[in-house]
Amino acid sequence: MYDIHDLTRQLQKDNGSRIVMLVADGLGGLPLTPGGKTELDTAKTPNLDQLASKSSLGMSVPVLPGITPGSGPGHLGLFGYDPLKYQIGRGVLEALGIDFDLGPNDVAIRGNFCTLDAAGKITDRRAGRIDSDRAAPLCEKLNNIKVPGIEVFVRHVKEYRLVIVLRGEGLGGEVEDTDPQKTGVPPLEPVAKNAGSKRTAEAAAVFLKQAREILKNDAPANFLTLRGIDKKPAIPTFEEVYGLKAGAIAVYPMYRGLARLVGMTILDAGQTLADQCARLEATWRDYSFFFIHFKYTDKCGEDGNFDEKVKKIQDLDAVVPRIMAQRPDVFIVTGDHSTPSKMQSHSWHPVPTLLASDLCRFENVNKFGETTCRGGSLGQFEAKHLMLLALAHAGRLEKFGA
Amino acid sequence: MYDIHDLTRQLQKDNGSRIVMLVADGLGGLPLTPGGKTELDTAKTPNLDQLASKSSLGMSVPVLPGITPGSGPGHLGLFGYDPLKYQIGRGVLEALGIDFDLGPNDVAIRGNFCTLDAAGKITDRRAGRIDSDRAAPLCEKLNNIKVPGIEVFVRHVKEYRLVIVLRGEGLGGEVEDTDPQKTGVPPLEPVAKNAGSKRTAEAAAVFLKQAREILKNDAPANFLTLRGIDKKPAIPTFEEVYGLKAGAIAVYPMYRGLARLVGMTILDAGQTLADQCARLEATWRDYSFFFIHFKYTDKCGEDGNFDEKVKKIQDLDAVVPRIMAQRPDVFIVTGDHSTPSKMQSHSWHPVPTLLASDLCRFENVNKFGETTCRGGSLGQFEAKHLMLLALAHAGRLEKFGA
Repeated sequence: MYDIHDLTRQLQKDNGSRIVMLVADGLGGLPLTPGGKTELDTAKTPNLDQLASKSSLGMSVPVLPGITPGSGPGHLGLFGYDPLKYQIGRGVLEALGIDFDLGPNDVAIRGNFCTLDAAGKITDRRAGRIDSDRAAPLCEKLNNIKVPGIEVFVRHVKEYRLVIVLRGEGLGGEVEDTDPQKTGVPPLEPVAKNAGSKRTAEAAAVFLKQAREILKNDAPANFLTLRGIDKKPAIPTFEEVYGLKAGAIAVYPMYRGLARLVGMTILDAGQTLADQCARLEATWRDYSFFFIHFKYTDKCGEDGNFDEKVKKIQDLDAVVPRIMAQRPDVFIVTGDHSTPSKMQSHSWHPVPTLLASDLCRFENVNKFGETTCRGGSLGQFEAKHLMLLALAHAGRLEKFGA
Repeated sequence: MYDIHDLTRQLQKDNGSRIVMLVADGLGGLPLTPGGKTELDTAKTPNLDQLASKSSLGMSVPVLPGITPGSGPGHLGLFGYDPLKYQIGRGVLEALGIDFDLGPNDVAIRGNFCTLDAAGKITDRRAGRIDSDRAAPLCEKLNNIKVPGIEVFVRHVKEYRLVIVLRGEGLGGEVEDTDPQKTGVPPLEPVAKNAGSKRTAEAAAVFLKQAREILKNDAPANFLTLRGIDKKPAIPTFEEVYGLKAGAIAVYPMYRGLARLVGMTILDAGQTLADQCARLEATWRDYSFFFIHFKYTDKCGEDGNFDEKVKKIQDLDAVVPRIMAQRPDVFIVTGDHSTPSKMQSHSWHPVPTLLASDLCRFENVNKFGETTCRGGSLGQFEAKHLMLLALAHAGRLEKFGA
């Protein structure tokens, strides 16, 4: 119907203001028992609570009601990119997750080591889940493969998983998986889904032929299958669509990768929240937008550890004054999705969101949590609209129409 | 931008869970006086109230804010079919309303008996609103009409209204009405709007020629006009888009027809809520989704009978424990639209909605009604997204994206 970025390209203005978006991964939660409290409602968060009293609150719907997002769609939504429009293949996400800087001529492929029997049939699709110490040197061997006219990069990820990147002009990203999804049959040949990807399929076949020779004595990892073959989608940058110079301060590579996808500069995040705050302070004058990512709320949710998730939220709360000391014009606290400890997984539940600025309608509440955000003045909104609210409160959007 | 069902086709999984959707037709209401209570807020509903304390609540917007739906769009929305995309012609709806099982080669037409004068001009467009006892035998006479190569079905509906179905290969559904919408002029000839409907227009003309002869001595009903000529839209089935085996338990034919449109199996609903509950119990193992329709909330609203609508809501409340005794994984109570007694008609007001499941965020309320649903954690959502929420809470949707 309309494109958000057509609007922001047209309406953006640079007034020198600064926006900080603090993303607590998997922030939203569920009570363990009927009528109980969520992790966030349980946590003692004096700083966020005090901020809530001067902020607008609301609930962010990551994709659509009922749709549980992965990290990719979850973050693209927060960055203002419709996650149903910009879909990211598994190979690309895997490459982002090991900090591989994909270019426009790169095809990214997720590889799985597998075991072949003497007849060339797969007996184990994950090569006995070999450990990283054994798999990493195999990736180094594969990294020496030469395919004429194409650059090849092979990088180990974890255990039996690796990433292969084929770099070259005219390589399409539409090639079928070679993993047959079952044992007792040989791996499939790479097949192009369209004419533009024929060269990619051929390059992959050349790669696999050499790989078979290189790995032949490395059972159980004596071959590999290819999956999620894809190119990076063409995504306009933050600078172009919003006029923002954006810096990302994320400890985990996946989130640096997602930030890189939308053109953010990747800043050294160190290992801790204190490191991240120090980086924010050191680079404050250099950027107009900061994305700070905090992973541990999601991690504890995935582990089903309610109490630990509460503690991680409290850790996050403790650094809020340090961020606010920079006096951002807009400060947002939200999550890319909910990860209720009760479910030990991502979920579709809307995510509590706080937006602090001098131009807020206030809520007359003194707690940040699902209970207060549910009735907040930002209402329940699609995550992809959050950047519009951020820009507006930062004074960075002109009036639409006369 | 996206199609809900492209998502559900991709993300659906069958975990054996069961969903019950209880639709109280026209459930939402209005207070009779400023500051007063709606019908639902007035009703004593101890069972729904107790359920509300363990449920997520929200407000369903049937089509768009301010848009009052008929029964067709109202139900399509609840079933997750965008009512602006899937539009149902009047002839088709009329055929559904008398339990006529339309096939893909059927063109459905709403007929109105009318009165012609000696010159063939219409003097009464509704044939003096003749009663059903006189009209029904006329329909039986018309049912004997033969059109070469085409099957013809004529069924009486009520008073001057009837349904004609033309069945045959290659019959398009785009033919102009023959009702000139005024008296003093002859009925119009059936005119095809496109080449694909030429054969339909010709068949209708043959039908009308014979009808004129058959009815010539039956004044005031000595002819008929044709309106709302249309085919059943191509709608993907519940099974295909959601992976759900759906059974419909509806006393009124219109709602059975709407359920049939989306591929639900029509179960014998008997005449009462008790009959409907008995059917639910008897078929519980056979379906993964049940649509239970309750008409009387709408009927009392249309009659402008506030007190009676309150009573009907209380009747509905009384059967909630019997439904919950089946232990559905997701239980939803909603309406296809509001029918405020004050307006004696359908309205656009959002519809109170309750969703009970083990994966709910709770509301800390102990009443089901407009007042509590307004602030509920499901927020105000488009009806077409309700099925996504139902599937998500039932554990029937995979994560979107990695």
